[in-house]
Formats: sequence, structure tokens, C-alpha cells
Amino acid sequence: MKVVELSGGVGGARLARGLAALSEVDLTVVVNVGDDAFNHGLHISPDVDTVIYTIAGLEGPHGWGRAGDTFHLNDELARFGLDNTFQLGDRDLALKLYRTSAMAGGRPLSSVTVDIARSFDLDVMVLPVTDDPVRTTVLTAHGWLSFQEYFVTRRHQDEVLELGFEGSGSARPAPGVVEAIDSAELVVIGPSNPPLSIWPILALPEVRAAVESHPSVTAVSPLIGGKAVKGPADRVMASLGLPPGNEGVSKAYEGLIHRLVVDASDRARSATLGGVDVIATDTLIGELDGAIRLAKELTH
Amino acid sequence: MKVVELSGGVGGARLARGLAALSEVDLTVVVNVGDDAFNHGLHISPDVDTVIYTIAGLEGPHGWGRAGDTFHLNDELARFGLDNTFQLGDRDLALKLYRTSAMAGGRPLSSVTVDIARSFDLDVMVLPVTDDPVRTTVLTAHGWLSFQEYFVTRRHQDEVLELGFEGSGSARPAPGVVEAIDSAELVVIGPSNPPLSIWPILALPEVRAAVESHPSVTAVSPLIGGKAVKGPADRVMASLGLPPGNEGVSKAYEGLIHRLVVDASDRARSATLGGVDVIATDTLIGELDGAIRLAKELTH
Repeated sequence: MKVVELSGGVGGARLARGLAALSEVDLTVVVNVGDDAFNHGLHISPDVDTVIYTIAGLEGPHGWGRAGDTFHLNDELARFGLDNTFQLGDRDLALKLYRTSAMAGGRPLSSVTVDIARSFDLDVMVLPVTDDPVRTTVLTAHGWLSFQEYFVTRRHQDEVLELGFEGSGSARPAPGVVEAIDSAELVVIGPSNPPLSIWPILALPEVRAAVESHPSVTAVSPLIGGKAVKGPADRVMASLGLPPGNEGVSKAYEGLIHRLVVDASDRARSATLGGVDVIATDTLIGELDGAIRLAKELTH
Repeated sequence: MKVVELSGGVGGARLARGLAALSEVDLTVVVNVGDDAFNHGLHISPDVDTVIYTIAGLEGPHGWGRAGDTFHLNDELARFGLDNTFQLGDRDLALKLYRTSAMAGGRPLSSVTVDIARSFDLDVMVLPVTDDPVRTTVLTAHGWLSFQEYFVTRRHQDEVLELGFEGSGSARPAPGVVEAIDSAELVVIGPSNPPLSIWPILALPEVRAAVESHPSVTAVSPLIGGKAVKGPADRVMASLGLPPGNEGVSKAYEGLIHRLVVDASDRARSATLGGVDVIATDTLIGELDGAIRLAKELTH
């Protein structure tokens, strides 16, 4: 069964790990690149790497990077007056160095990503949504900020007044993205932050059109009891004028999804979400067995 | 007292540490860049970094890198099929990343090097001999090799038939190099490998001319009992047709030096080296106190 998941970082990555574990699923993960940045000359793709590390069973402890890493290089950057707020692990940096070096040699991000996934023995296609630069920008009371300034430097404390997805209008989907969606039996929107992680994927007109015309699209809500399991999704959604709770998630994906999977504890509140079937189950998937259980429910 | 030292890696760096420790000495170290290379997109200047680390008291255990480092990033590079023979430490890589990033922003190597030396609280001017690319190449039975191929990959096992210093003819000395030599009371050629570490410095016509016209140039032999303290100097000198022992060192610097400092154990053998005063003392300077003692003898 061909499945495409649209994914941001942690939540989407965990679900991807569950889907990847099912032998009957042929999985392609289409990943947000709106958070991509250059730090110290290195090409950082936080969500792509989190997806790969998580599927490989190497999920980092803080929502990025990989398990059991050290930070000797990163710590030492301070000596040279460099901003090392964005904590890059030593082993994680080997990946960043490989990517940067390969891309400097002219290879596109998607091609390098395929190689990286293979290096971790992943039997899954992981595709950045595009090889073109798309950058999420965040309007706050301090003006427009890059995603990393908003999220890492200022620890997503500012109210989000507006979002921009620079470059998305003219960006072309990476080779294979639209084809994967078109040929999939099921498209799953992972339990990622709808405005910050999924909208930058859907901001590409060709990707949006492919999802819009797909006959079977299921979104998994990242909210439980109206709150994000991790990160600022509920606050961002509220400040952008979306309704609270799963109504807001449904609204964020209006015209795109056929089913919304919500946590069992939210069933009563989410009984009626106009036009969209609501499925209630346990959506908290910290560990692999939980992710596999949810993946099975989505694909059975 | 203004002193300029011409230096390669380990031996020259240790003497530089001794000279730097003398409060009466105002030291400029002019460093070989013929070994510079790009590894994984990073600008590596092995001799410059060894000089800085050694003066800072952080000399690495193997002739490069810094003390107490880890190799997590370097080890991980193998996963991506990258050649990680050239062992780069995690903390050492922070310096490499800083240099590469600063140079990508348009700054010359010498300016970045001054900042790096300052970051390690060095009260010494460390100058790469040039900001232009000069690359030492080595002709062996396997053809022309880059310095790193010859030295690191093939562990300097091949007979050296000829040396090339690509780019040296048109390279301009870095700002301050010729001025430092011209205004120095003493020029010291450190106990580095004459053909591999010092010739690439002297291959720049303006540098050679400045040393040639200097009234007081002292070379310290890297040989004891005809053998290099570290590295292949004696073998390289022999295969290039230089006489054995300190006669070969004197010949390597013909027309340039006024004094040759040799190890006390070699005094008898080196009594007559045409036109050049021979000074015998203890030239083995593994530790700081030995380096300071030798530095005092050179400058008193």
C-alpha cells in the first residue's frame, strides 16, 4: 500500500517511524523545508534530519539532532564569537557537513537526502518538498523574523501575527513528490504544527493541487485537549485566528482532508467538524509501539 | 627585540612557543600554507593551526589538531562514504568551520588567522605566508600527489623525486610578512622540514628576497644524528639529492642563513659547513622549558 505522509519535525517524524515499520506500507515522507537555514556556512534541514533520525531510531532528546550526541564543536564555536544557540551535535554535524559539501558540488537537496536516508539503512523514501529555497518567515511585534530567530533564538515566545513562505509561489516540488502523492492510496498529514510545518509544504501550488485532488487524505491532529503535545501549535493557531482545538486543525486543512484523527480524550468536543469524518484514537505516540499502533489504524 | 620565525608544523611550532614565552621578544611567526587543503568543504591550514594550538599550550598528540579532542564528527563521516583518513577533532573543527565561514564571507586567510590567534589569547602575530593559494605537490613513482595524499593518505612512504609549489611564483606575501622580516633584528628558520615546510615559504620571490637580504638569519636544524626528530625530513632531503645530516640542512638554505644551530650531539660532524657559523646546543624541545631555553639561546 502506497502511503505519502506530509511531515514537519517531531510529531510527524514519530508517525513516519510507525508507518515505516509496517511491511505492507510503501512509504514516502514529504518533508517541510521552511525551517531550513545556513548556520556557520552549513545547510541545516532540521525537519528532514529529524525525520531520518527518528525513523532510524535515533531521535534526539530535544526535538532535533540525534540521540547520544556530544556538543564539543558547538560549544567551541563561542570562542570565535559565533552564535551557537542552535545546538548542533558533533555526529549530527557530520551529516550537515556531508550535505553542504555535496550540495556545493551541485547536487540538489532531494538527491543528497536520498543518499543520507540510505546511509542510515532506511527503507523509506524521504523527500524534502522542494529543492528550491522556501523560507518560513514570522511576523511578530518585533517585525518579520526568520523561522530560526522566532523558534530557536526567541524560543517561540512571540505572538505570531502573520506567516510568510518566501519562495513558495515559484518553487517546484522536488522530483517524485507530486508523483508520490498522485500514486498513493492514502495521504496522511502528520501530527505536526499545521501553520508552521504543514502550510509551508502546501504553499507550493503544485503540491497543494495534488493533495486537493487526492481522494483519500487523513490528517492527524497535533492537539490533545486543545494543547500541542510539543511546541507552540495551539498558540500560533489562536493568534492566526483559527478556532481553538481540533476545529482549528480542521479549518487549517479546509478543502484538503477527508478525515481528521483526534485523540480519544477529545472525541466529545470534536464530534461535528463540518464535512470531515472524525476518528478518535490514542494519538500520543512517544514510543515506537504507539506509533505502529496509530500507523496500523490509519492504513488498515 | 623583533624576531620573525619561519615555521612549518610541530618543530617550528614548539620553538615559536618558546620564543612567544620571552617577554623581551616581539614575535611574528610566518607559517607555511603549502599543506593547506579543502576537506569536506572546509579550509584546513594544518601548519597555521598547529602553530596556534602549540603556542596556546594545546599541542595535539599526533602532530596536528589539539590536545584532548574527540573525533565523533570525523568517525561519523565514514557513514556517508567520505574519506576521513585526515583525522579532524570536534573542537578543532570549530576553528575550521569558523575559518571557512569567515573566508566565504570574503575575508583573507591572514586576517582570519589574526582573529583566531586572538581567540586563543595569543600575544603573538601568526601570519600565513600568503593569502593566495600555494600548494605543495610531490612527485613520486605514483606521479604527482597533493601534499595530503603524499603525507596523510600514503603516510609519506614514497620516495620524493621532486617538489612543486603551485602558485608560489605569482603569490603575494600576506600583508605584514615582508614588513615583519625587514624590521626584525633576527630571522629564525624553525626546526621544520626544510624542503616540505620551509621551501614553500621561500618559494614566494618577495619572501625569499627579504630573507636573502636580511643581515641576521639563523636556522635550527630539524635533524639529530642525521635523522628527523619527527617526520620524513632526512629521507626527503636524501631523495632530493641533498647531502646527509646538517650539511644537507645548510645546503637547503644556501645563500640565506648566517648561522645553523645543530644538536650538541652533532657538533663534531658539523664543524665545517662552508660560510655558515655552526652553533651546537640541545635542540630537542618537546616541552616548554626546553623550548624557552633554546629560544633564549637564539635571541640573547
